[in-house]
Amino acid sequence: MVSKLSTNIRVIQYGLGPIGRAMARYMVEKPGFDLVGAVDVDPAKVGSDIGRVIGLGGSLGHVVCERLAHVTSEADVVAHATSSHFHVFREQIVEMLEAGFDVVSTAEELSFPWLAHPREAAEVDALAKRVGRTVLGTGINPGFIMDYLPLCLTAICQRVDRIDVVRRVDASARRGPFQAKIGSGLTVEEFDGRMAAGRMGHVGLPESMDMIADTLGRTLIRREYQVEPVVASRPIKTDHVEVQPGRVAGLRQVARGYTDDGEFLTLTMVASLEQGDDAAPFEPAAPSEPAAPSEPAAPSGPWDTIRITGEPDLEVRLKGVHGDIATVAIAVNAIPGVRAAPAGLVTMRDLSIVTV
Amino acid sequence: MVSKLSTNIRVIQYGLGPIGRAMARYMVEKPGFDLVGAVDVDPAKVGSDIGRVIGLGGSLGHVVCERLAHVTSEADVVAHATSSHFHVFREQIVEMLEAGFDVVSTAEELSFPWLAHPREAAEVDALAKRVGRTVLGTGINPGFIMDYLPLCLTAICQRVDRIDVVRRVDASARRGPFQAKIGSGLTVEEFDGRMAAGRMGHVGLPESMDMIADTLGRTLIRREYQVEPVVASRPIKTDHVEVQPGRVAGLRQVARGYTDDGEFLTLTMVASLEQGDDAAPFEPAAPSEPAAPSEPAAPSGPWDTIRITGEPDLEVRLKGVHGDIATVAIAVNAIPGVRAAPAGLVTMRDLSIVTV
Repeated sequence: MVSKLSTNIRVIQYGLGPIGRAMARYMVEKPGFDLVGAVDVDPAKVGSDIGRVIGLGGSLGHVVCERLAHVTSEADVVAHATSSHFHVFREQIVEMLEAGFDVVSTAEELSFPWLAHPREAAEVDALAKRVGRTVLGTGINPGFIMDYLPLCLTAICQRVDRIDVVRRVDASARRGPFQAKIGSGLTVEEFDGRMAAGRMGHVGLPESMDMIADTLGRTLIRREYQVEPVVASRPIKTDHVEVQPGRVAGLRQVARGYTDDGEFLTLTMVASLEQGDDAAPFEPAAPSEPAAPSEPAAPSGPWDTIRITGEPDLEVRLKGVHGDIATVAIAVNAIPGVRAAPAGLVTMRDLSIVTV
Repeated sequence: MVSKLSTNIRVIQYGLGPIGRAMARYMVEKPGFDLVGAVDVDPAKVGSDIGRVIGLGGSLGHVVCERLAHVTSEADVVAHATSSHFHVFREQIVEMLEAGFDVVSTAEELSFPWLAHPREAAEVDALAKRVGRTVLGTGINPGFIMDYLPLCLTAICQRVDRIDVVRRVDASARRGPFQAKIGSGLTVEEFDGRMAAGRMGHVGLPESMDMIADTLGRTLIRREYQVEPVVASRPIKTDHVEVQPGRVAGLRQVARGYTDDGEFLTLTMVASLEQGDDAAPFEPAAPSEPAAPSEPAAPSGPWDTIRITGEPDLEVRLKGVHGDIATVAIAVNAIPGVRAAPAGLVTMRDLSIVTV
């Protein structure tokens, strides 16, 4: 193994669920990074070599610790992937900052917490500034496709009247917990019951709405949220679940934000084993004369759509945005930018460009 | 007229061609900006009220000056739109910096000059740092669609093997000088002659290639450039030109960048009165059930395409990116970011998010 330069960023991975393990693997591969520790509460992981727990061929020479305080390696940054919710991750972030680390987290509620969690955001910001460290929450959604990228696209607009984003996740190839989170296999009644109990659905739409509205200087006077099941029209079988026709294949979740002038923003998330008619094929006619002769094949899957109505009207479609791969990528790719950012709780809009 | 707050950014518009005039109009409309002066060498403009020259209904109370030194208003920033080329704009930028202004420019060769113009870039950077001011070159292309945006999209990738961008400009609704610049109405022989003389074509492909390669840590060992006419298949008439079948309707310009591993990057610009077969309709099937019921109509025009091959493969298509509107927008929208950026010659990748 080639030894890495000492200027590498030394990272502790906190949380070794599917996303955390993938982040750890990516950091082991990625030039410029040294994975020097890992934290997880799972007794089956604690004490084992990190390399084995994250599925590398060999060992890394560091074991998984039950608590951050048990990690003995010197490190610069904690990469955090545990819970979506402030009431769970707040103490974890506080501990990381007090131990003197910069923090990059996939926690949805941390991505733009100033409006939904003002008190907690102010607390984390003040602590980070006091210890001279930086905290960022990011991911594909929230963190990119429904907030940062639409905002980036407004750079080429002279006026924005409204923004509509539709994110389509083909859940059929995703993790079992993800398929469960969107209600796959439930009856419609079970789905409605779990929804009413607040136990399902995508976390982060309020944060994405708030980042867009706040950055563009709009005040949202009303926010509406709506979730409905996507019902299977045919039998569906994945590695994790079987769904009979009439049962739930996934969900469609819509957030709407209104200003004094009316509806300004809609964020629609369709995460389903079956995308339905409104995700009908969106393919270009086969080019008779390709612009780039060596042009590669297009990725498969449904299209995400960002529409900006204004001057000019823009429509942007994206294909191939895999939620897990993308979340792992952006969380790790943002680390150098977080190291360079001023102390405090920052959001994606504060960083200079984040790239692979 | 409501008087603006004194915290507005005070801008001098330098260059009152079509782009410069549109920038000036946008700054008059845009909250947070005060247009306090303008410079142009055209004797027909010098001494006239800026408001009349840029086509506002009324006067602005400032006249167009022939030289920057003649502008008497206090100002913070110069918005610069004159020439694409360092040998023309270098002295202008130097004068602005020595007069103590931050600078945002639409000059293509300034967008990422470190490789194509290293000596000039170092000179501007050193001067900007000495006087504590910031200089940015930006625009839609270079500045966004072929460099900044593809780089932003790599944030959600774990590996990038190659990048292919195709920019399609429907020139039929563009300015006369633009239609002339792409060869509209020439015979193929005339087109080839002017190309050989270096008097036509899009400026900025080398800068876009360099920004991408440098940011992603790749070394381009070879760059290839190719320009060919797009030949009209039918008679075309615009407000500025008539083109008979067999004559030139526009151009297709391709830049290819190679690393040690082979072709890494292709940037294709098709700017034509007629887009040709390879821009065949790329429309989604009509949704049977729209995701957002109030979804606005899609913009018209050809699609731009960004393909990233890697982990994952991504394809992004954009419609409605109007070159002039977008260049004016991003140049002005970048001004607050430039004011906040450290002193020196910066590029789009150095700024925090730029939005409308």
